[in-house]
This record gives sequence, structure tokens and C-alpha cells, in this order.
Amino acid sequence: MGRLYGGIDLGGTKIESVVCDGEGVVLGRERRPTPVGSADALLAALAESLEAACARAGVRPSELEAAGLGAPGPLDAEAGLLLEPPNLGGLRDLPLAEPLARRLGVPCFLENDANAAAVGEFTFGAGRGVRDGVYITLSTGIGGGLVLDGRLYRGAAGTAGEIGHMIVQPDGPLCGCGRRGCWEALASGLALARQARQALAGLAAGPARDWWLERLEGRLEAVTAADVFAAEAQGVPPGPELVAQEAAWVGLGMANLIQLLAPRRIVVGGGLSRAGERLLGPARAKALELAFASATRNLEIVQAALEAPGAVGAAAVAMRRLRGEG
Amino acid sequence: MGRLYGGIDLGGTKIESVVCDGEGVVLGRERRPTPVGSADALLAALAESLEAACARAGVRPSELEAAGLGAPGPLDAEAGLLLEPPNLGGLRDLPLAEPLARRLGVPCFLENDANAAAVGEFTFGAGRGVRDGVYITLSTGIGGGLVLDGRLYRGAAGTAGEIGHMIVQPDGPLCGCGRRGCWEALASGLALARQARQALAGLAAGPARDWWLERLEGRLEAVTAADVFAAEAQGVPPGPELVAQEAAWVGLGMANLIQLLAPRRIVVGGGLSRAGERLLGPARAKALELAFASATRNLEIVQAALEAPGAVGAAAVAMRRLRGEG
Repeated sequence: MGRLYGGIDLGGTKIESVVCDGEGVVLGRERRPTPVGSADALLAALAESLEAACARAGVRPSELEAAGLGAPGPLDAEAGLLLEPPNLGGLRDLPLAEPLARRLGVPCFLENDANAAAVGEFTFGAGRGVRDGVYITLSTGIGGGLVLDGRLYRGAAGTAGEIGHMIVQPDGPLCGCGRRGCWEALASGLALARQARQALAGLAAGPARDWWLERLEGRLEAVTAADVFAAEAQGVPPGPELVAQEAAWVGLGMANLIQLLAPRRIVVGGGLSRAGERLLGPARAKALELAFASATRNLEIVQAALEAPGAVGAAAVAMRRLRGEG
Repeated sequence: MGRLYGGIDLGGTKIESVVCDGEGVVLGRERRPTPVGSADALLAALAESLEAACARAGVRPSELEAAGLGAPGPLDAEAGLLLEPPNLGGLRDLPLAEPLARRLGVPCFLENDANAAAVGEFTFGAGRGVRDGVYITLSTGIGGGLVLDGRLYRGAAGTAGEIGHMIVQPDGPLCGCGRRGCWEALASGLALARQARQALAGLAAGPARDWWLERLEGRLEAVTAADVFAAEAQGVPPGPELVAQEAAWVGLGMANLIQLLAPRRIVVGGGLSRAGERLLGPARAKALELAFASATRNLEIVQAALEAPGAVGAAAVAMRRLRGEG
């Protein structure tokens, strides 16, 4: 067996761990709920999750070269600190990398979860072999990570890649961050659901409305992005219009990233990316329309490839940081 | 005398050349009009301009370590080709670096003019010593250059840094590039002049209108960005409102750059930057309001420092590329 790496993805509701080899092949995987309330319980759950993934891969944690931990920001990746850990009642500045390393007996590295997924995709996934790329996660929110010149780019402040919060419509809808018109407020899954809710509220009686009432069990206000894609796939109004508008906003944000960074490849992950070319096709067309032709000649815009991008990405972070490859 | 570098800035109307030392101190400088019509005349003018700057510095061109040439894009910096040279009647793909090197007898390097100014500011000017920064030129248009991890970042397509063409208001005013709502269409000198023209057209009779009629010799439609700053300095409406709005747009674009790149320093050059803190002050305040606090903790937003950023920047490009420092 070659070198092995552990990856842990800490989410607000679940922890997922993997053990994978130096090619990103997953040999063991485990999931459990994120504990609530105490830092000790969180640390124990993170370690136990990776230990369980190791057991499934038939190795001891100490046989790993290193482990990576992806977590929601804000965090200090260098110091291995979670600045505002979720579910811990306002606790701040929680050291995670060092205590995990002590418990597991291997070097541990902390990284922002979107950055970890970016490193994962550009190491093992749809961005493999590419030196200059942008990873976009289209999910309830929009996050991202920049791989520039072959390395994760964090910027001077360590926060680079907050692509969901570039403002693309200053008088636009309120964003979760409190500002107006962020890309996330226009193109995220929550934004699409909000637009669907508004459209459904005005939908006249007829077969389309009946379809929606049946699908949503009468609660039109409960519509999600997934429902919109289902309606689009079946040609049920306003599904197609909503997806077209969503794709246009996704493409506009991509165009801005292209104008600024001129990447070789854009990899799109997150829940919304599962719609595949039905979303990516028109989004790509819009991006190519709005960006300079000189910047898009060799550009590829592709769907993410990893099954567990957060955890495998964290393992990729561990591998690359251990090797000093950022 | 230490090592010397030549820099040539090719503009649409003028050529400016400098000879400077390894600290960016200008020892000789020359300007002449850009010739129209033939590639040979252009090449001769570029070489003669640098030769004249050398004469003023008391050195022969062959005593330079290298020379840099900054030119408007699109161009191929690696191959030293100008793809669409100005004033040459549609001629394409003009080799410049190689013929200039032959004539001058020293290595020559070609770079996009905004990138050259960025390299100049981050090597010798207001960005000196900073590894992660953005250079913005606020002029008739908006251009920029990215210095990431200590090197000029061109992206995979070589076109990175087209910051003026990120879209910040999709239904906004038409941009020179043919798209709507580019940052440049809202915050450039031309955009400010357009907004002033609209405001002046509706200005009621009174002392403010009289001030404008006198300043513009009756031709209110001839208003420029410089006139707006003059009005603002004297408190003449609508100068203050126009500058406040301009600063807000400048700050919004900066905020987007901060969210994406989390730079240590933003250096602002170009004609509009000469307004100094009267523009930069409120623009900085807006940027800090719109970007995440975690990204701006150590951020500085400062005015450019170089007197001849294009030519000195080209010399800085020559020095850095000769050393393999990008």
C-alpha cells in the first residue's frame, strides 16, 4: 500500500471522514452528526470519525502520512484555529489542528471547506493537471477557492476566494451577509428558491399550478432549488424560465471571475451543479458571451467530479501541505 | 553606476521612455508622439525614444541590462507580439520584443501597459515590499494588474487583471467594450464625465450654473472628470454629489477585488487618482463597508507613487523578467 492521507469535513450538521491514497482513491469513509455544545465533544467526534474511516480502510491512524480538516470559515489555516466554531454557543478561537495531531499521532492541517474542495478538485478531480483554476460551489450559498500557479491562493488576509460575495447588482436582493446584490443573493440555491417562491405565488390556476401543488403537497412556499430543476426537466412553468435566469446569473459571475483571473478551468461543484449541463450549458454560454474572447479561448467550464469533495479535499490539503505544495 | 534598465511606454498618442537604476530612480527620460502608419516607423520611434533617454542618462543602450516595453493589449507577452497594434491600419501580430532587442543589443520584454504599471508600483512605488496587491488605474477607462505571491499574475490566458470589465450592474450603462454595466462604465473618467453631462443638463439657473458656464465656456456638454473634481473642491453643485457617487462606485469595485483576492495593498493610479484622498477617502470607506472585515484588517488602499508608471513599470518588468522573478 502506498502513502495514505486522512480527510475530515466538518459541517454544521455532519462530519464526514475519508482515508485515501495519493491518487485520491477513497479506501474508507465514515459519517456522523456534528455534536452540539462542547469543544471536547467536537474534537472527540472529529477524531473518532477519522478513526472509523481508518478502521474501514484497514489501517491505524498513525499509519497515515497526515490528516486534513476542512471547516466552515472564518478560520486561521496557518495556526489551525477555528475562529467561530459552529454549534458551540459563541465559543471563539478553538485550536483544532494541534489537538487532533496529538490525538491521531500524525500532522494535521486545517483549511476553509471551500478551499479544501478546490484543492481536492484540482488535485484529484475535475481540475486535475490544471495550474490555474477557480472552484465554485453552487449550494445554498456560493463559495469558492482559487488555485493559481498550481497552488491554493489565500491572499494576504487568508480569506481570498469569497466569490459569492462580489456584488453584481448593488440595488439587488438582500444577502445572508447583510449586503445587497452579492452574487450569492442572486445565484445560490436559496436565491433560486426565493425567486421560485415569488413566481409560484403569482402562478394562475391550471395544469402547472396543479403540478406544483401536488409536488409540494400544497405548500408552494416550501419550494426548493431541486424542485425548480425537476419542473424544468418536465417543462413545467415557471421551471424553464427560472433555470434560464439562474444560469444567466451563474454565467455573469463566472464572466467576472474570467475577466479578473483568466483561468484555464472553472470547476463547478455544490448541490446545484448536479443539474449538470442543464445548468452549466446555458451558464457557460452566458459566461462566454460576457467575458473577453481572448480570455476564454482555452477555458473549460466543467462539473466537479469528487463524490466527497469536502473530505477528499481535506486529504488533498494534507498531502499538499505536507509536501510544501500549498 | 549600478545596473540600469530601460523602459518604454507605448501609448496611442505618445511614446515615453526612461532609463532607471535597480531602485527605480529615473536617470533619463524622453517623450515623443506615436507615429502613425507603418510598423517600421513605430519600431524606429520606440528605439529612438529609448536611445534618447539613454543619451540623457549618459549611457549607451547596450549598457542597459535589459529593456521593457509596455503597450496597450491585446498582446502576447511571452512571444513579444502586439496582436492589434494601434494606428497601424489593422495590421496584426506585430513582433516588437525581438526586433527591438536586435536593434538595441539588449534583451527586450513586452508587457501589457496596466500590468507594467502594476509591476512598477509593486517594485518601486507605492506597493514596494508587498507580495499580494492589486493595481488599479482609474483613467478614461479602468485597467489593472494583479501581483500575487510576489509575481505578476497573468492567468492561463495571459489576460488576467481586466478588472474594469467585471460587471457590477447588469442593466447599467453601455461600456466601451459593448457590454452593459462593467465597472469601467460606472466608475471611469468617461463614466464620471457622462454622469456630469447628464446632471449639468438639468441644472437650474443660478450661481452653480453660472460657474459651470464660465468654466466650460458655455459648452456644458464638454465637461470632464477634472472639471467635476474642480467643482467638488469649490463646493459647486453637483460636484460634491458626483464625486460621492464616483467614490461609491470605485469603492464597490474595490470591495469585489478584496472579496476575491484579499490583497495586502491596493494601489490606485491613473488620472482620477490625482484627486487623492478626496476620492480615495470615501472610496476606501465604501470598500471597507462592503468587504468582509476579516479581509480588510491589514489592507491598505493608497495612491500610486510613480511619476511615469508606464515607462518605469516597463523597466521594472525588464528587471524582473531578466531575473526570472516574473
